[in-house]
Amino acid sequence: MNNRNIPKIVIDRLPWYLQTLNQMAREGLSIVSSLVLAERLDITPAQIRKDLSYFGEFGKQGSGYPVFHLMDELQTILNINHIWQVAIVGVGGLGHALLNYHGFARHGFETVLAFDNHPNVIGKQVAHLVVQDITHLEDQLRKKAIKIGILTVPARQAQIMAERLVSGGVLAILNYAPITLHLPPDIQVQSMDPVQSLQRMTYFLPR
Amino acid sequence: MNNRNIPKIVIDRLPWYLQTLNQMAREGLSIVSSLVLAERLDITPAQIRKDLSYFGEFGKQGSGYPVFHLMDELQTILNINHIWQVAIVGVGGLGHALLNYHGFARHGFETVLAFDNHPNVIGKQVAHLVVQDITHLEDQLRKKAIKIGILTVPARQAQIMAERLVSGGVLAILNYAPITLHLPPDIQVQSMDPVQSLQRMTYFLPR
Repeated sequence: MNNRNIPKIVIDRLPWYLQTLNQMAREGLSIVSSLVLAERLDITPAQIRKDLSYFGEFGKQGSGYPVFHLMDELQTILNINHIWQVAIVGVGGLGHALLNYHGFARHGFETVLAFDNHPNVIGKQVAHLVVQDITHLEDQLRKKAIKIGILTVPARQAQIMAERLVSGGVLAILNYAPITLHLPPDIQVQSMDPVQSLQRMTYFLPR
Repeated sequence: MNNRNIPKIVIDRLPWYLQTLNQMAREGLSIVSSLVLAERLDITPAQIRKDLSYFGEFGKQGSGYPVFHLMDELQTILNINHIWQVAIVGVGGLGHALLNYHGFARHGFETVLAFDNHPNVIGKQVAHLVVQDITHLEDQLRKKAIKIGILTVPARQAQIMAERLVSGGVLAILNYAPITLHLPPDIQVQSMDPVQSLQRMTYFLPR
């Protein structure tokens, strides 16, 4: 499913469709037309139909998409039809907030390891985890075969910590540090830099 | 500058270029070729040249881009050559972490208002701000002419709080709540949902 030359931008939209379908399911909808879904997403119905057509047929012509079926299919496409274990590196304010965030578990991402380098934090219980010494990072990642890391360290430590995640076997990094990581091309990185996101909006604000 | 039909995806890449140029400047580079910049970003030099060409000429043919000049130009394009005042709505764990984050001020985003609805938090000093009662939201936003809001409330409160930000005059919302906001088309929204970002990576992980 990875090799059909599906544009990255299409993949990027699927989680957003899934989130919106989740909302609609909670609201009690069981069937949704691409028109209604499009309205909720502020895009065109044609866009949704085109995006989904990369992956097959999801609804009968004219009868809309069955919400739960489409959600299931999207979860399979996105490779989230099972639980992913995740490690968090850096337990400062943001790391604390993320460890206490229930949204991960609700969507199949289970934080199972947390690391820091500060003696005041190591050994401390934060939410459901005891923070471990960063010296054990690679060992622990390998022992649990962790493939996803969340990086919440200061910018100056982010590159070296990202490299250590990779050498521990991690293949995907959610990077909260405001730097561009330089990693092998097979490593997935998503940046969560709020400054960049603010700058994507100021362009459109009055000058 | 907003109306030249520049693809949104191009605008979305500019903050990333700017961040990387910032890093290069800190490393002491004063001139950078599109080749070197492209290598750092893991994209093609042609992509960078094409993206920048929407906005004019930034370097002499063959001599590379002067780093600080290009940074200045990008800041002007992105409308961040002055300070933007920002309001934060929701001072839980994440709100705390963001109020304590120095990266905003360093990049010209000054958090000047913080709101919550919980009596335990209202009146409390967090970082440089005293948290205000959410009942004063629209008044305070208008008084300070705030155009940018950061939404760090639980999902179930996010839509109503987003609407209140908009009725207070806010035009751009950085939304940390894991829901798709439904707002007028002239309102800019950027989602900072970590689950969606994780799902954008799992697609590419081994199945």
